[in-house]
Amino acid sequence: MAEKKEYLDILKRAVEANRLRSFFAQYPEHPKAYPAEAPEKGMEAFRAQLNQNFERLLQGPPDDWAGEEFSPFTREALGIRYPVYSTETLLKNAAAARSPWRKAGIEERALILVDALERIKERFFEIANATMHTTGQGWVMAFQASGPHSNDRALEALAMAYEELTRFPKEVDWVKPMGKFEIKVHKCFHPVGKGISLAIGCSTFPVWNSVPGIFASLATGNPVIVKPHPGAVYPLAIVISELQEALLAAGHDPKTVQLAVDSHKKLIAKELAENPAVRIIDYTGGNEFGDYLESLKGKEVFTEKAGVNSVIFDSVKNLDAVLQNLSFSVSLYSGQMCTAPQNFYIPEGGVREGEHVVPYEEVVNRLRDAVYGFVHHPKMGPGTLGAIQNERTLDRAQGVNELEAEVLLSPEAIENPEFANARTCSPSIIEADAGSELIREELFGPVVVVIKTRDTAHSVELAHDIALKKGAITCAAYTTDPETEKMIEERMEEAFVPVSFNLTGYIWVNQNAAFSDFHVSGGNPAGNASLADPNFVNRRFVWVGHKKLMD
Amino acid sequence: MAEKKEYLDILKRAVEANRLRSFFAQYPEHPKAYPAEAPEKGMEAFRAQLNQNFERLLQGPPDDWAGEEFSPFTREALGIRYPVYSTETLLKNAAAARSPWRKAGIEERALILVDALERIKERFFEIANATMHTTGQGWVMAFQASGPHSNDRALEALAMAYEELTRFPKEVDWVKPMGKFEIKVHKCFHPVGKGISLAIGCSTFPVWNSVPGIFASLATGNPVIVKPHPGAVYPLAIVISELQEALLAAGHDPKTVQLAVDSHKKLIAKELAENPAVRIIDYTGGNEFGDYLESLKGKEVFTEKAGVNSVIFDSVKNLDAVLQNLSFSVSLYSGQMCTAPQNFYIPEGGVREGEHVVPYEEVVNRLRDAVYGFVHHPKMGPGTLGAIQNERTLDRAQGVNELEAEVLLSPEAIENPEFANARTCSPSIIEADAGSELIREELFGPVVVVIKTRDTAHSVELAHDIALKKGAITCAAYTTDPETEKMIEERMEEAFVPVSFNLTGYIWVNQNAAFSDFHVSGGNPAGNASLADPNFVNRRFVWVGHKKLMD
Repeated sequence: MAEKKEYLDILKRAVEANRLRSFFAQYPEHPKAYPAEAPEKGMEAFRAQLNQNFERLLQGPPDDWAGEEFSPFTREALGIRYPVYSTETLLKNAAAARSPWRKAGIEERALILVDALERIKERFFEIANATMHTTGQGWVMAFQASGPHSNDRALEALAMAYEELTRFPKEVDWVKPMGKFEIKVHKCFHPVGKGISLAIGCSTFPVWNSVPGIFASLATGNPVIVKPHPGAVYPLAIVISELQEALLAAGHDPKTVQLAVDSHKKLIAKELAENPAVRIIDYTGGNEFGDYLESLKGKEVFTEKAGVNSVIFDSVKNLDAVLQNLSFSVSLYSGQMCTAPQNFYIPEGGVREGEHVVPYEEVVNRLRDAVYGFVHHPKMGPGTLGAIQNERTLDRAQGVNELEAEVLLSPEAIENPEFANARTCSPSIIEADAGSELIREELFGPVVVVIKTRDTAHSVELAHDIALKKGAITCAAYTTDPETEKMIEERMEEAFVPVSFNLTGYIWVNQNAAFSDFHVSGGNPAGNASLADPNFVNRRFVWVGHKKLMD
Repeated sequence: MAEKKEYLDILKRAVEANRLRSFFAQYPEHPKAYPAEAPEKGMEAFRAQLNQNFERLLQGPPDDWAGEEFSPFTREALGIRYPVYSTETLLKNAAAARSPWRKAGIEERALILVDALERIKERFFEIANATMHTTGQGWVMAFQASGPHSNDRALEALAMAYEELTRFPKEVDWVKPMGKFEIKVHKCFHPVGKGISLAIGCSTFPVWNSVPGIFASLATGNPVIVKPHPGAVYPLAIVISELQEALLAAGHDPKTVQLAVDSHKKLIAKELAENPAVRIIDYTGGNEFGDYLESLKGKEVFTEKAGVNSVIFDSVKNLDAVLQNLSFSVSLYSGQMCTAPQNFYIPEGGVREGEHVVPYEEVVNRLRDAVYGFVHHPKMGPGTLGAIQNERTLDRAQGVNELEAEVLLSPEAIENPEFANARTCSPSIIEADAGSELIREELFGPVVVVIKTRDTAHSVELAHDIALKKGAITCAAYTTDPETEKMIEERMEEAFVPVSFNLTGYIWVNQNAAFSDFHVSGGNPAGNASLADPNFVNRRFVWVGHKKLMD
């Protein structure tokens, strides 16, 4: 393998970064850090792929070709068709790839996977366009989330696996003193992957949410079948094709990782998930299917499901800076992020700003004005909002008038200067009672709920209770009082929710950085897995220790 | 806390031992390594406890007193009664203890738990008598298994938890360069225990099988309710009382760990397990209840269930030495160990010994003679066999004549010179077909099944398939051929079974050493947990990382 030494350095830096958890990024998130011709080449590759069969996979002759992707920006079909295989073929291929892949060992597997990341890097700009026109993400986010951020989270999981699989000695001599003599036993310790792994992709972050599980399973010696969402295949197809190229280049079976394309007419996720040969499942998506997967016997299931994220207002230095920051957070990708804030808890007594108290009504009005101003800012609004991935989300976002709540800011279509047909919807703001059922469900998409509370303690109890029952991935809290900060932190961590305090400026609660932030705690109903804690890799294999009496 | 520095050293040595996996034992396994008066004092304490209330627990006034233990050696009731509490009281106590215990932090918790182990050490001899007269283990095994070996496995789990909970920095500053300026965020990472932990004990190894989970849960910040088997409460009661003393001495709530005694009339394991507040369950026992526990939603369940362990004969240096070793293995505690071998696979072409081949029939006859000779050896037999824990196991062991198999060696009572009423039963040997259903079930207790196979490859396939379907914890294999050794190792590890090769002399397949051998792989149906791999502690808590924007 070319650049082996360089690849080993990348891996070791990532292992160290996982331990240190301060800033580290292997892949630069700014598009300008890449070759000058890269954006145009990526766009060309994207245009050339439209309305063509996706021929880059190394999975052998397919049974059929299928594809049903639509761009949320143009509302036109992408016209790309992907090779379709029977689940029998996919499982047979995976079973055949398992033993050689396991025996390759962690060092060889890890270097092949770093090679794959370097190959994927060469496709970042095509992946960005593919992500944009399947998910509806704005271009900058599509580039960052599916490109460098995805590669970083994949590398993070790979590095965690590398550390875990090399933490015990491969072999040792064990000596037991027995008084006049001793017993010597030679022991070896083998990490053995649990079996075929299934990754079920989602329609909003097809690459970012799938690659950590794919890389963790491959690193721990398990073949992977990737079942993308039928509406967001293209970005993952590029990633899988590059993984297959890296496998082939190293003399391994490219079918160690396979793309399993299905259609809304015949979805195959259940069929694959229930097959006894499938021992590991990664899933991002709604609660109902996630709960079903978690209930399957004899599987290790890793889920990221829905949650109700909260914003707790107590006291601030500068309310405008806070509201500006939150306007961006609720607008970013039109609230279609699992980390987007939903429930805004504001005390009826208002929010203290320095020496003064801003009354409740004024806070709410200024929040409304800030969001309205942000989405109508021609340079900020359209690019940040992106487009709504599908009609169901649009219907929900537009249907806020029918909810039992006062509408403070109505949703509206925001014109996108680049794409006249873009499916857009600005965040609406509604006001609901603390006792309302509304605030106890995820309202996926651009919907903000303002809740008047008795005081900060009441806000925290609501956020805590809803997180424990319904799950939560993020909580943004604003307080200038150290004791209140400690109270919020302790109470929210009892619901397994991380808190981001006092974010203003160019950092938002939606963001979780690889090599530093764990994404999802795994402790509440929003998901049972965490990117990428030791469990995320350790649950994919077991240690088997053999021993042999020495003469 | 007294001896804090010494305790920290114990802990750090154990962390290092976990990593190195070569021999290390904190607690000496030979009774003579303890003070000369210790055995007599232990016996006195045991005698003084018989027919008395067990008053040593620090759990407050009970609702009732109950106890129903019988000695398998004397077949008389122990007459000890334990305090009984309602499940509501137990859960309320645990919930109250949770937050302060979590906030104590890993360093403080770990030192208290080492202190508890040192206190338990002072009770080893009473615990040995208590174990003997509840489980039926012979005295030497009762001392070793419930004393030093248990303490070592508890320390191993504690050290693994200590390593995991301290592997990430408590706090870091995260800096993101933004060109002309940078963003600084202060982050902290808190391990948060998942919640109340339930440990369900078994009747054969009440201490050894329970303490790893109890210590792992306590170390990771979770209060523990210990529900012993009604027939084997006493040894665990001593352990829990010493844990409570250590908690009290450190100023913590002794009810952070509680003993939950029930009776066969009203078993409370299900009631506790199904309570939503119980988030972690450790269980050792039969498959049916284990499978039920594993199916409960929203719980982390750690199981050790039943399996079918195998012996694979291929070629040997000295057949007598091999048969001697195996005679001990099948006799030790009358086959009532989860690691005891059951299925003996012998090729129809015989077993090569040096230059010669010993025919199948001769191998079987010599195996029978070796077992018969061993159990009738007055110095070896009775002490090794111990007694049968309960009547159901005795009935099964004595019922081999009714099975569809040829009986090669009949079970018989072996007189115990010390206890005329001991419930004893020597191992029987039966011969069954490779296709028989008999060899596909655990026959718990002293039953050996000989299976004639076509060749070693056939033996391995049978052992592999049965392990994958029914589980297996151990496999003993005898071969002098390196290629066959490699074949057996690779095939058995694909069923997640560790193999012990060519054991003779004073080391047996039944034994798994703390700080070196992982006990149970967790990959096949014999159990989903492994003592003590990283999963064994990591699944009990989650990482919650808070962040705060710095000025």
